[in-house]
Amino acid sequence: MNWVRGSTTQSLTLWSDSPETTVIVPVVSLRAQNIPASPIRRLTPLADATASRGVHVHRLNIGQPDVHTPRAMIEAYQTYDEPVLAYGPSLGIPALREAAAADYARHGSAVDASDVIVTTGGSEAIRFSLCAVADPGDEVLVFEPFYANYLGFAAEYGVHLRAVSSSIDSGFHLPDIETIEAAITERTKAILVTSPGNPTGAIYSSEEMSRLGEVALRHDLFLISDEAYREFAYDGVKVTSALTLDQVLDRVIVVDSVSKRYSACGARIGFFVSKNPEVHQAAMRMAFARLCPATVDQRAALAAFATPQTYFDEVVAEYTRRRDVLVDGLRQIEGVQTYTPEGAFYTMATFPVDDVDRFAAWLLTDFSLDGETVMLAPASGFYSTPGLGTKEARIAYVLECEALRRAALCLAAAIPRYLESGRGALPRA
Amino acid sequence: MNWVRGSTTQSLTLWSDSPETTVIVPVVSLRAQNIPASPIRRLTPLADATASRGVHVHRLNIGQPDVHTPRAMIEAYQTYDEPVLAYGPSLGIPALREAAAADYARHGSAVDASDVIVTTGGSEAIRFSLCAVADPGDEVLVFEPFYANYLGFAAEYGVHLRAVSSSIDSGFHLPDIETIEAAITERTKAILVTSPGNPTGAIYSSEEMSRLGEVALRHDLFLISDEAYREFAYDGVKVTSALTLDQVLDRVIVVDSVSKRYSACGARIGFFVSKNPEVHQAAMRMAFARLCPATVDQRAALAAFATPQTYFDEVVAEYTRRRDVLVDGLRQIEGVQTYTPEGAFYTMATFPVDDVDRFAAWLLTDFSLDGETVMLAPASGFYSTPGLGTKEARIAYVLECEALRRAALCLAAAIPRYLESGRGALPRA
Repeated sequence: MNWVRGSTTQSLTLWSDSPETTVIVPVVSLRAQNIPASPIRRLTPLADATASRGVHVHRLNIGQPDVHTPRAMIEAYQTYDEPVLAYGPSLGIPALREAAAADYARHGSAVDASDVIVTTGGSEAIRFSLCAVADPGDEVLVFEPFYANYLGFAAEYGVHLRAVSSSIDSGFHLPDIETIEAAITERTKAILVTSPGNPTGAIYSSEEMSRLGEVALRHDLFLISDEAYREFAYDGVKVTSALTLDQVLDRVIVVDSVSKRYSACGARIGFFVSKNPEVHQAAMRMAFARLCPATVDQRAALAAFATPQTYFDEVVAEYTRRRDVLVDGLRQIEGVQTYTPEGAFYTMATFPVDDVDRFAAWLLTDFSLDGETVMLAPASGFYSTPGLGTKEARIAYVLECEALRRAALCLAAAIPRYLESGRGALPRA
Repeated sequence: MNWVRGSTTQSLTLWSDSPETTVIVPVVSLRAQNIPASPIRRLTPLADATASRGVHVHRLNIGQPDVHTPRAMIEAYQTYDEPVLAYGPSLGIPALREAAAADYARHGSAVDASDVIVTTGGSEAIRFSLCAVADPGDEVLVFEPFYANYLGFAAEYGVHLRAVSSSIDSGFHLPDIETIEAAITERTKAILVTSPGNPTGAIYSSEEMSRLGEVALRHDLFLISDEAYREFAYDGVKVTSALTLDQVLDRVIVVDSVSKRYSACGARIGFFVSKNPEVHQAAMRMAFARLCPATVDQRAALAAFATPQTYFDEVVAEYTRRRDVLVDGLRQIEGVQTYTPEGAFYTMATFPVDDVDRFAAWLLTDFSLDGETVMLAPASGFYSTPGLGTKEARIAYVLECEALRRAALCLAAAIPRYLESGRGALPRA
């Protein structure tokens, strides 16, 4: 039998046992075709091939921390002992909702357990948010570069992400209010922000968060604030939660996750926080439909909330050192532009090549220094405006200082060699 | 400050510190408003109140089995011991994908590990399916009564479920091919079926599955087959997987789950199986966006696949006994109509009252027999055609035989008392 692509409007084909019959195969939805491939994992096959040749790859493309998970979380798995691994409540185990609410209260936000819905990772909280605020064809305002997977979730829901560009020159802080407002249309339903930022590491100041609240209030928008990196703030910079914006509290949705905070990315526990009853009920109905988050992961997340502050102090001190090693190393490379990110564990950098996608692939296929090379996340996938970010990469400082130092040396050696090869030379001025 | 409901088109309101300012709060999306509340859990607050009065509630509303989870799964949690609880691969741990594929092969389906994507429960596999085949405004054909949460996922994606009714008179088997085809429109993209059925317990015969394949082929549709209850087939009835329909294999998507099979509902591990490369890639992009299923749950699911056949033999024997006790008990009640379900652990029954929603609530608020009562799942939520199912309930036989016997006695005593009370009497003929 022959298979050909088709669609329901193209033809009807009769059932037949003949192996010669041509059969029309239906095509996947347009939205599924619009979901982009992950810019973070796109080069993984090349990197695996490089590693199999015996070249060590410093994987700075992905935000998988090497920090140890709090031991109490691991022990929560080890002590699990029930005869029946049953469904939990759809909104999450009450003790976990209470622990999360108490944690927000410690950070200055008046959140009740009833405002919190436990989700399957921050990812599900993002999905709930987009679905709760926007219908197909509606728009959500984002600041590019932004977390690339927002594009995937938006495509699933038929929501258009309208991006306002931020620049490496300001360390990816917010543009002025007029620039933000100019991007708002009749279809705009929400502003979606990430602070501390992925991929930028920027932490929006209290004034910037208030600016977003002001725009949300003026234009009748929801404010979705992805605060998954809340604990990762350096040099004493303060993270302002959207939950402290009293004047717009009813339109705030906070997306949160235990993944980064407790180095527990595999636990898939996040939080959807809203004090707006209609938003809460919308998310609740979505939560009921998918039954519940993982039962044992919730036990582990509950144990995580007892983690002492000293754990975070050590983690923050270590990431501060790593950031400094990486940024110092990048600054010594001619033609590379970077800045000092205030939080998360990423920085963006501009490279003196015309296409970082090609340069990043070349680093894996054609380059090594003393048997080592570097894997970057090309930044184009973090932008939705075509052509932006082609000279930028996101670099995650999730490895130890010595590896980051060697990675920077690799990049310093690679750039002139790449330019000399003539493959990625910028046109001379 | 005063909050009032509004929408982006209604007004702009200026930022102000004045507590007297009236603020327009944006409204949630239409689709979020369209997600129905769960018919299965809707009566839970009433049941909890009843239980707190000291009345024992036989909870036959929900498919939470009391069967013990295979011990090897529990031990997989207990032996988890890694320093960092890291992300797993987006498509699932390779060993788990291989184990699932080998299991399909044992059941006669030629599935490779590369055809399998591990999902967060069967729920996520349903979402991936709907999103992969249908754009907003498209239709998916279902047979009512159907698994109620399909409505929630469809609403999220703006997909319309067009229902063809099946009847208790035929034990909810499929209508003839002309009736099915009459419901297909230009927007129909797929047929979504559940066999063994929830809420019906019907197992579609090999001929019925072929009939669905024929319709899919004629009308260029995908065939989404939810096979989460595959192991639960009684009296030697054979479950025909859509993965054995060789002529339409390229348009088949199978939704699967470990939840019921291993009594591990809290593990949130399911499978999305497709041999169509475009469908697989669409689901893969969705899988990448949400990063990965829970890491430790996947270890437990992998351990589950080593469960010996004797486990299932015992479970099937026990459910057969339970089904027989329940169905026999229901058949002895005047005015109740039921049938012998071939699989899963549900039956539907028609009650001689004009509204089972009200009767089910009354059972909890106003009735008890020797300190006991019954919680049913009113069937209206399993239908999308308004007015259908109002006299029916889904009854899950997930309790031990003695509890089911007593539950049937409760219902036998309750119905005449309810009718005598005059609250739910049917008009006399």
